Amino acid sequence: MSSGVWFPTLGLVAWLCCLSLGPVQGGKILVLPVDGSHWLSMKILVKELSRRGHDVLVMVPECSLLMKGSDSYKTEIYKVPYTKDDLDGSFKRLKDSLFIKPPSITDLFVNVERLVNFTSMQVKGCESLLNNHPLMTRLREEGFDLLLTDPFLPCGSVLAHMFSIPAVYFLRGLPFDLDSKASQRPSPLSYVPLAFTGNTDIMTFPQRVKNMVMFFVESYMCKVVYSHFDDLVSRYIGDGMTYKDLLGHADFWLLRYDFVFEWPRPLLPNMAFIGGINCGNASPLPEDLEEFVDGSGDDGFIVFTLGSMVSIMPEEKAQHFFDAFRQIPQRVVWRYTGVPPVDAPKNVKLMKWLPQNDLLAHPKAKVFITHGGTHGVYEGICNAVPMLMFPLFGDQGDNVHRMVSRGVAEKLEIYDVTAEKVVTALNNLIHDKSYKEKIMEMSAIHLDRPVEPLELAVFWTEFIIKHKGAKHLRIAAHELNWIQYHSLDVIGFLVIILLTVLFVTFKCCLFCTRKCFRKGTSKKKKE
Amino acid sequence: MSSGVWFPTLGLVAWLCCLSLGPVQGGKILVLPVDGSHWLSMKILVKELSRRGHDVLVMVPECSLLMKGSDSYKTEIYKVPYTKDDLDGSFKRLKDSLFIKPPSITDLFVNVERLVNFTSMQVKGCESLLNNHPLMTRLREEGFDLLLTDPFLPCGSVLAHMFSIPAVYFLRGLPFDLDSKASQRPSPLSYVPLAFTGNTDIMTFPQRVKNMVMFFVESYMCKVVYSHFDDLVSRYIGDGMTYKDLLGHADFWLLRYDFVFEWPRPLLPNMAFIGGINCGNASPLPEDLEEFVDGSGDDGFIVFTLGSMVSIMPEEKAQHFFDAFRQIPQRVVWRYTGVPPVDAPKNVKLMKWLPQNDLLAHPKAKVFITHGGTHGVYEGICNAVPMLMFPLFGDQGDNVHRMVSRGVAEKLEIYDVTAEKVVTALNNLIHDKSYKEKIMEMSAIHLDRPVEPLELAVFWTEFIIKHKGAKHLRIAAHELNWIQYHSLDVIGFLVIILLTVLFVTFKCCLFCTRKCFRKGTSKKKKE
Repeated sequence: MSSGVWFPTLGLVAWLCCLSLGPVQGGKILVLPVDGSHWLSMKILVKELSRRGHDVLVMVPECSLLMKGSDSYKTEIYKVPYTKDDLDGSFKRLKDSLFIKPPSITDLFVNVERLVNFTSMQVKGCESLLNNHPLMTRLREEGFDLLLTDPFLPCGSVLAHMFSIPAVYFLRGLPFDLDSKASQRPSPLSYVPLAFTGNTDIMTFPQRVKNMVMFFVESYMCKVVYSHFDDLVSRYIGDGMTYKDLLGHADFWLLRYDFVFEWPRPLLPNMAFIGGINCGNASPLPEDLEEFVDGSGDDGFIVFTLGSMVSIMPEEKAQHFFDAFRQIPQRVVWRYTGVPPVDAPKNVKLMKWLPQNDLLAHPKAKVFITHGGTHGVYEGICNAVPMLMFPLFGDQGDNVHRMVSRGVAEKLEIYDVTAEKVVTALNNLIHDKSYKEKIMEMSAIHLDRPVEPLELAVFWTEFIIKHKGAKHLRIAAHELNWIQYHSLDVIGFLVIILLTVLFVTFKCCLFCTRKCFRKGTSKKKKE
Repeated sequence: MSSGVWFPTLGLVAWLCCLSLGPVQGGKILVLPVDGSHWLSMKILVKELSRRGHDVLVMVPECSLLMKGSDSYKTEIYKVPYTKDDLDGSFKRLKDSLFIKPPSITDLFVNVERLVNFTSMQVKGCESLLNNHPLMTRLREEGFDLLLTDPFLPCGSVLAHMFSIPAVYFLRGLPFDLDSKASQRPSPLSYVPLAFTGNTDIMTFPQRVKNMVMFFVESYMCKVVYSHFDDLVSRYIGDGMTYKDLLGHADFWLLRYDFVFEWPRPLLPNMAFIGGINCGNASPLPEDLEEFVDGSGDDGFIVFTLGSMVSIMPEEKAQHFFDAFRQIPQRVVWRYTGVPPVDAPKNVKLMKWLPQNDLLAHPKAKVFITHGGTHGVYEGICNAVPMLMFPLFGDQGDNVHRMVSRGVAEKLEIYDVTAEKVVTALNNLIHDKSYKEKIMEMSAIHLDRPVEPLELAVFWTEFIIKHKGAKHLRIAAHELNWIQYHSLDVIGFLVIILLTVLFVTFKCCLFCTRKCFRKGTSKKKKE
């Protein structure tokens, strides 16, 4: 046996060519994205696939927030039964609600209500697409090799199933861990903390009880939240299929996190971790911005944004931040489209949109004030900038909890923020060196990986195209029902066997004892 | 937010340099290998680590089968309480037993007995190393950064624990799946088939019952097989630690398979799959061998070897093979050191040692006759050569079962082999195109990977050195006992709460009912 690195021989190369190994040529990819920040990271993969010669078609609803046409890929605009005003109105309601504190016991329910409101309009858009028969026929006839989608909305999964093409899912995670449930990823409740529990992977007994109770609450909530998805799936696919069942058909899961951020937990062979895919190469800053941040001297500067959706806040809320920034020597770059006060401090630069990653990559960036969306969190990790976090909704509370638990961030609530709280938190983050040290360690581990996230995402997408799926990575749990999966039928059977054996043995012993006893008695009688 | 591929900025580069990202310089690695074929693949990684500038020291027992000194890495020869004759004698007894058929019901027990005999001598060697105090002191003072070992024997794990250095495990899998048990990898019995059951990942009800029964048998066997390992661990480490507990401290598992070969099953964050690491680059064949195989014309040739340990077989057994080869048009290259018969057919070339991978990489290789060791199996997969398999002992039966189930191999038993059986199997493998097609598909999938196995093994070894372990990849299950892991305490607690609530409610209702009833009765009485 010879050793060393493997290189294919000539004969093998000939075979492999037949099997179209190596960069796949001209795969036809249909993309069903989710609007908003979800699209921002998927776009990176879509552009790269297109750059590598794939024929990519992105489905875009005629009213959208962040999705537009592009020279890098083809788009197909489809009609939706709502106007841009409806969409903006819906998002405004969501945004306005973020600054009002709900009683903490109802946190989960408020989040669920927001989630259902947030998705219901987009689900209507999805239905409108599925009912567009001429477009559906045309898409089907295109003969796509693969469907790339974010399963936060059900449209892509339904299309993949209807067109019988492999599906690759691109996501951070679904509400109530539906992705884990659907993929049958083992998630022991004893060390996999559920959302909204505030638990980490190491739990005390009461925390484990809370985790278990939350499991039952989640199971119920899951039914509520996904009921309109289930309806849609059952109407367009039938067979009594639920959305969870449909997701179980995924060929591959591209998960937008890694174990620097997420608590370590079991995974499945058809999963890859692409956390940090959005930490693009930092471009030079525009001249005026570079001048502003560079002029911050040794004190450095702070980057402040609450994500792609929230660029405004009630004036009295904003006033707290202006008051706080007046008290610190750092400069602040803030994405804020509200009206600034007359006495706005000079160390604050307000912008309509800011180059977040480029700013965080600047060596003078000291703190990142963020809402805790995973895109921002990963840009903070990549560039090793400690964070002051204001979770607003959805998974942000859990994202923030992860960063705070790891000692790289401080958390404040937007509901009861004051200038003092902000100043204290910023001073802690800047002057207590442990925040910076820990996030530098975290960043170093995150960036030390065998393949870059974008490269990995492209690899697996092309793999699924080349090999028409990845059956060899699919666990056989999908062929089992709940009773079979947990071997309850087998355990029941073995218990019956055991009891029968015990019963028969007992009866035999009883029979023998009686026989002996009778013999003894009759002998005695005879005597 | 900007998009695109990530490149660190200047400021970040400065930090990362402090954290020694990039190729680690001069890590000090202590290697505790396992003799025999296990060493052949580990040697590939050891050589590569050494080539990349690491200071590698390999511990070699003074009597060994395949381990030798090398210019590529340093070796330290240590004394063992047995001679080369003892070692050869022990292996001869093992090899002789392989050609005698045990009753199939005792298959498992015979394998266990062979395993215990096979390891006990090497465990004595390990003890001798651990008792060599001057050497131990010297090794401890060397200040190694990492211990690389094959946990098939316990010496490496014990040393890593004693020296408090991170441990990387390099293995195919341990008998009775101890690696999964120790790493707390979830392995549901409903779709993860156990060894010696002949099950695949898709099981009927009786097969699942068999799997469950085997689980109990295995649990018992595990105690028997690893009892002398447990003794050793408890003597040298104490704390009532078992070998399984010790293995649970692994920093990283390099697993020598992938899901082309293995049934898909859950994995853990600190595992990487390096199956095929031994498929080295095929070198040109020696001139006479090239002439022999090339002269086989369109009929091609067959590669025949039963692994690194078995190059001889009883004469009457060999005669069957000679008789079979006489009847086929293919040429045969056979690793056989026995005495050939006078009338040995001309199409057979006997060799003492053959360049297995180089031969399999030859485009005229038609069939690979093998015992089903994973090294050979992966060389067959890499080069897409269908196999005729004669499992001899250990995991080979299961390896063969995997390949036969996937339709890329035929299996025969060495006990009752006849010329006719061999000829029929070879003709099937050569003339039924499905074998070749399936193994070509398998090979294409196996070879299509984001990182080459050797590169991946080096990456993770260097990662563990740079970051002094991989705590962020370690599941918190290791902090839990069996009851906590399965949440039995939490379930018990919740059941008690539920019963108490029910009981109190019932008592309250009863009390109220009685109260009402009494009132009614006294009213009636009064009336």
